[in-house]
Amino acid sequence: MKKLINQPEQIIDEMLDGIVSASPSSVRRLEDTTVLVRKDAPVDGKVALISGGGSGHEPAHAGYIGKGMLDGAVSGEVFTSPTPDQVLEAIKATDSGSGVLLVIKNYSGDVMNFDMAAELAEAEGIETAQVIVRDDIAVDDPENRRGVAGTIYVHKIAGAKAETGASLEEVQATAQKVIDNARTMGVALSPCIMPTSGEPGFELADDEIELGIGIHGEAGIEKRKQMTADEIAAELVERLLPEVDLADQDEVAVMVNGMGATPEMELHVFNRKVQDLLQEKGVKVYDTIVGNFMTSLEMAGCSLTLLKLDDELKELLDAPSHAAAFKK
Amino acid sequence: MKKLINQPEQIIDEMLDGIVSASPSSVRRLEDTTVLVRKDAPVDGKVALISGGGSGHEPAHAGYIGKGMLDGAVSGEVFTSPTPDQVLEAIKATDSGSGVLLVIKNYSGDVMNFDMAAELAEAEGIETAQVIVRDDIAVDDPENRRGVAGTIYVHKIAGAKAETGASLEEVQATAQKVIDNARTMGVALSPCIMPTSGEPGFELADDEIELGIGIHGEAGIEKRKQMTADEIAAELVERLLPEVDLADQDEVAVMVNGMGATPEMELHVFNRKVQDLLQEKGVKVYDTIVGNFMTSLEMAGCSLTLLKLDDELKELLDAPSHAAAFKK
Repeated sequence: MKKLINQPEQIIDEMLDGIVSASPSSVRRLEDTTVLVRKDAPVDGKVALISGGGSGHEPAHAGYIGKGMLDGAVSGEVFTSPTPDQVLEAIKATDSGSGVLLVIKNYSGDVMNFDMAAELAEAEGIETAQVIVRDDIAVDDPENRRGVAGTIYVHKIAGAKAETGASLEEVQATAQKVIDNARTMGVALSPCIMPTSGEPGFELADDEIELGIGIHGEAGIEKRKQMTADEIAAELVERLLPEVDLADQDEVAVMVNGMGATPEMELHVFNRKVQDLLQEKGVKVYDTIVGNFMTSLEMAGCSLTLLKLDDELKELLDAPSHAAAFKK
Repeated sequence: MKKLINQPEQIIDEMLDGIVSASPSSVRRLEDTTVLVRKDAPVDGKVALISGGGSGHEPAHAGYIGKGMLDGAVSGEVFTSPTPDQVLEAIKATDSGSGVLLVIKNYSGDVMNFDMAAELAEAEGIETAQVIVRDDIAVDDPENRRGVAGTIYVHKIAGAKAETGASLEEVQATAQKVIDNARTMGVALSPCIMPTSGEPGFELADDEIELGIGIHGEAGIEKRKQMTADEIAAELVERLLPEVDLADQDEVAVMVNGMGATPEMELHVFNRKVQDLLQEKGVKVYDTIVGNFMTSLEMAGCSLTLLKLDDELKELLDAPSHAAAFKK
């Protein structure tokens, strides 16, 4: 294993300081925590948005802190939920009295720890609400679906809603609409390497890929022999479209997300086929983004997210964002 | 080799179509070429900026097309210069009558082919000027230095200058100032894999890194046994600072550039030490960017660029950019 790190145990601490040192005028770290917040938090009269989870998915979530997106992000160890006390610190530091929305990816540790933090915050008189992102269709049961790249659209759109001065209930409703309308599926070409052990997170043979992989290397739908970019695009579009439930005039946002080590060239090759297929099927694409938005360390592969839009979501998607990883 | 591609021979063509299909309202492809240009090119009354080179460095250069940066980008095959006729097409499509600045990385093929295109354009009555980027200090002789990540600052700053309505001569002078003030050095932790052959671009032992690597895997200063992120940061800062020639009140821009497969987490860990070292040495940092700006397919590693700023460069660096890979 070769990684650009120092002591593996220090990696989160050093990463967080590194993020702040790149954006000292817009992001600050709460002392003795793994919480980063907007420099100007709490923002008067605005509902705050908090997200977080295990590290290793950068730029998720700290890269999405900024006017128009998140007020704070809480980082656990690599692929490990942050503890409730850390989430509580984030809530306390960002609440302006208008309440705090917690954007939680659907993993049992995250759900439990964010919920516990919410209870502690309520006990201190801070109003909170939650949404749980479950966009990964590789899992059959919708209740058990994992939260993956679609989470970025929740940050973007609910973040923009909060900037309008909407109430906590309204911001939560918009976030929930994004969750209801977003579907994702991913594919891995190679595993990521865990910084602590130096070992691959899962096994893939030299001629195998894994369809429906999770962002922590959780097993997907099946292992397949190597497929072309076009074949993979067809497989993902085919599985996603029925789940997005489009009516005739609906438009979608498309996210082609690199898992960490995929050359951007390959993401564009993949995106070309995705767009061709959507056009063939009469799906109108309103907006496309291609890049590394929700990674799994140096996993090779990508995910495809389709988000069904309406007028509200389009307007909020287009609104300005100052987040380092999502300038708009 | 596992790559998210179809036929390796189609990779550039498919990538270019993929880029356009993600940004159909802002970028278009010149038919039967490997040239992408601003959708609204030529832009009346504005000097045009063209760059390009071999592919495999995405988002360089097509990702930097947009108001405030490039008017066009010419893509060769992977790590191979584009031909003069392609460059000529880019010049012709972007010239509004105000002239065209060619931003060329210092590789013999690029220099020769862009120059030949310039001659052909001049014969057609189009005024051109050139700058040659040579920011890689891994090569001793300044004349022979390669153009690497510092090129992005040339795109950004000269692109902003062109938007002010400056003349070709003025835009060229600003671009040359960036080149004179930018210095870069890189390190590789693992090689990239050539799409055509499926073979690594160069060899590195399991416990080795290469200091001063080029963006095509050209040999660097030396191979070293694995070093920590902090040690590598110290080595690069130590070598770069004397080259940047800072006076007491000078400020710098810092670019931490991932080579393609480096987890963003690691870039932040590396950046933390860079910032610490600069602070220790009394260097004032005006702006920092961390991400994949000039890659080498899926090479693991990073480069560090320091750009000495003055008031003009600061203002132009801060100016808006609509480029997909560099929104500002």
